[in-house]
Amino acid sequence: MNETKILLTEKEMPEAWYNLVADLPFSLPSLLHPATGQPTPIPPPIFPMALVTQEDSRERYIEIPEPVREVYRLWRPSPLYRAHRLEKLLNTPAKIYYKYEGGSPPGSHKPNTAVAQAFYNKEEGTKRIATETGAGQWGSALAFACKLFGIECKVYMVKVSYQQKPYRRILMESWGANVVASPSTDTNAGRQILAKDPQSPGSLGLAISEAAEDAFGREDTKYSLGSVLNHVLLHQTVIGLEALKQLEKTGDYPDMVIGCVGGGSNFSGLAFPFVRDNLVSGKKTRIIAVEPLAAPSLTRGVYAYDLGDAVGMAPIAKMYTLGHTFVPAPIHAGGLRYHGMAPLVSALYNHKMIEAVAVHQNPTFAAAIDFARSEGILPAPESAHAIRVAMDEAIKCREEGKAKTILFNLSGHGHFDLGAYERYLSGQLQDYEYPEAEVKRALQDLPKVAA
Amino acid sequence: MNETKILLTEKEMPEAWYNLVADLPFSLPSLLHPATGQPTPIPPPIFPMALVTQEDSRERYIEIPEPVREVYRLWRPSPLYRAHRLEKLLNTPAKIYYKYEGGSPPGSHKPNTAVAQAFYNKEEGTKRIATETGAGQWGSALAFACKLFGIECKVYMVKVSYQQKPYRRILMESWGANVVASPSTDTNAGRQILAKDPQSPGSLGLAISEAAEDAFGREDTKYSLGSVLNHVLLHQTVIGLEALKQLEKTGDYPDMVIGCVGGGSNFSGLAFPFVRDNLVSGKKTRIIAVEPLAAPSLTRGVYAYDLGDAVGMAPIAKMYTLGHTFVPAPIHAGGLRYHGMAPLVSALYNHKMIEAVAVHQNPTFAAAIDFARSEGILPAPESAHAIRVAMDEAIKCREEGKAKTILFNLSGHGHFDLGAYERYLSGQLQDYEYPEAEVKRALQDLPKVAA
Repeated sequence: MNETKILLTEKEMPEAWYNLVADLPFSLPSLLHPATGQPTPIPPPIFPMALVTQEDSRERYIEIPEPVREVYRLWRPSPLYRAHRLEKLLNTPAKIYYKYEGGSPPGSHKPNTAVAQAFYNKEEGTKRIATETGAGQWGSALAFACKLFGIECKVYMVKVSYQQKPYRRILMESWGANVVASPSTDTNAGRQILAKDPQSPGSLGLAISEAAEDAFGREDTKYSLGSVLNHVLLHQTVIGLEALKQLEKTGDYPDMVIGCVGGGSNFSGLAFPFVRDNLVSGKKTRIIAVEPLAAPSLTRGVYAYDLGDAVGMAPIAKMYTLGHTFVPAPIHAGGLRYHGMAPLVSALYNHKMIEAVAVHQNPTFAAAIDFARSEGILPAPESAHAIRVAMDEAIKCREEGKAKTILFNLSGHGHFDLGAYERYLSGQLQDYEYPEAEVKRALQDLPKVAA
Repeated sequence: MNETKILLTEKEMPEAWYNLVADLPFSLPSLLHPATGQPTPIPPPIFPMALVTQEDSRERYIEIPEPVREVYRLWRPSPLYRAHRLEKLLNTPAKIYYKYEGGSPPGSHKPNTAVAQAFYNKEEGTKRIATETGAGQWGSALAFACKLFGIECKVYMVKVSYQQKPYRRILMESWGANVVASPSTDTNAGRQILAKDPQSPGSLGLAISEAAEDAFGREDTKYSLGSVLNHVLLHQTVIGLEALKQLEKTGDYPDMVIGCVGGGSNFSGLAFPFVRDNLVSGKKTRIIAVEPLAAPSLTRGVYAYDLGDAVGMAPIAKMYTLGHTFVPAPIHAGGLRYHGMAPLVSALYNHKMIEAVAVHQNPTFAAAIDFARSEGILPAPESAHAIRVAMDEAIKCREEGKAKTILFNLSGHGHFDLGAYERYLSGQLQDYEYPEAEVKRALQDLPKVAA
């Protein structure tokens, strides 16, 4: 077998997403209402019913609607690569495979769920969707998906990113989205902040508040989230389901499956079908989540009920968290700067069904450059976290003389992250020590709920 | 047939490039030496012999070396798309297909030749390659290719682009290239200009002079060109050869084949195998080259001997030209801002074997936005010229009620052109009238040679 890319035909694209919840040997803790502390679904006024239902579903396989598959076909099935050149560079006996999600028009895995969410919204008559975005990865995926289904898209983009990263904003606008800097004058939440501090740089938490307020306030508008929730993770499983079929063609099966984690969606998308194999087929695959040391919720956080956003509009969830008032250092992997972790990923970690490791940003960029100079593709800084650990494991294989099979998720390309690459290449990139005292402080702010 | 992407396996990738010269019913005019006016090959001191030979070859098929195919596999075979969504938007009975070359790591068709050139250089012991780049599309392709073959790469980047478009520079540096702003202090040509005008913004002509001087001056160094020359066009034919195989799977054959032209390489790559079918199989496919009205060498230039660069270091070629002292307006399709046209493309046009049409930049951006909002992919401004004419022809099909089959080349993505998109979306993009007087002036400067 000497192929570089293992491809699937459009007919081989999965017809259903995989819902890991159906196979778990334990129950997931409920979401709690932020005001009452009582169990609650995700709020139907701002989510379409199809997604409210999926969020709590225990069905094992959930059909991917044909209109969603039709859009998926623009870039799916995505290629699985055998990293021949990286293996050679590392002089490792390991076989390294990576699933590449950067071929989607927005350049990451995010449209796997954005397209599904836009479809269900369209089905239920939604005319307009509001969302927030930090660096713009999620916002551009939703802008793309909304345009294809004829839905208006309003994106509240954290002001500091809006000013410093105009390219992602223009990309969203090219797909027809209305993008405003958050805090904006379009919502009460935004106006209140601006009244206090007209120069406020904004934050992801505030942008969530603005988007949610927008959706709660207009009957034609729903809200959409790009990670963390069960239905988002569900939609991403198309990645791992394809990878399983592709690996079957090679005759290999991974000893390790690796993904980076912020909210947890690309990791889950690749990993959950392999977690299932561990659960039901007696496989012993190591499943490794890689997080930045600047926001190490799994490796340094606590497993507790906490707010999903910064201001308490979202339900309270049991998850590994650094505290919702903790603000991660400004690392360039903006997609990993989240105080918490998807409840489903958190439960797996708590039950020791997955491992986690935290890495600094300079070593991840070093891995990204090694990867770009061997495999060609310039990775997103987020994805580079997975590359770092895949390379470390491949080097271990060389040292131990073991020919293991490694699979990781290359969740996106770095075409909009070249400023970060420049800082790395010129030696100006800072590593942030784990802010122990700051996390300790933030953990004092956890909500008091009956557990 | 309802597929979106028509894929080939790696085994179906062409094993040879197609050399159109072998099938031409006429001889190509020779290149002439700039000093003597005598017929000359491309200069062996700065090109590897394999490429000097390919430049004048009359062999019909030239084998693609296995190490080149190995690198091609990182993104080839490239997908052929059926533009179902664009057809629907235009409400046309036409079938629209496009070959997408933006999936290569540098994001365009350019590595098809960069990889081949790096390979032949490596074979002949070249340690270092010097080249020029304008906006950076070619420079990044060569930086990528050189890194994979372990060759040093020096890029002279036109200073105004170096300053205004740092992202392409950083991309080249991420692949290990040494990039300097041209005029630079590294060459006599650069130093002379800087002595006269320390603030000189540079030009492509000057950057070519610097790169060529660099290569002439160092025994370990060769020079590399990204378009215009026969061997470059040859390497690009992998595009059209794949497209032929892919269309065969659909049962369709194009009535029209469309590509944008600057130097002519992406157009030739797609079109030449179809030109062959016209010549030897009695097909009647219309082959349409699309150029910007700001640099309309085919539709408004003269067919004459002219310099390939601005300063007379390159051989003199018979081609459609606006005069080597003509400087095209600063349109955003930087890759199409060339005063001349590939001699081979020029000869085809002169023999009426291809058509040409010139378009303004605002209508091309309008087409790009329609395309992005239907097909998802954000096109490079260069490629948008082909989209514009493909859409115009599809609209004609609607008006005439004819279900023709249209194939065009989507030569690259627009991830590094978002500044141009912003200008278009905010209504600030200017259309440049065809500068008749300026071309008339420049045509006075054609070299005097015995034709």
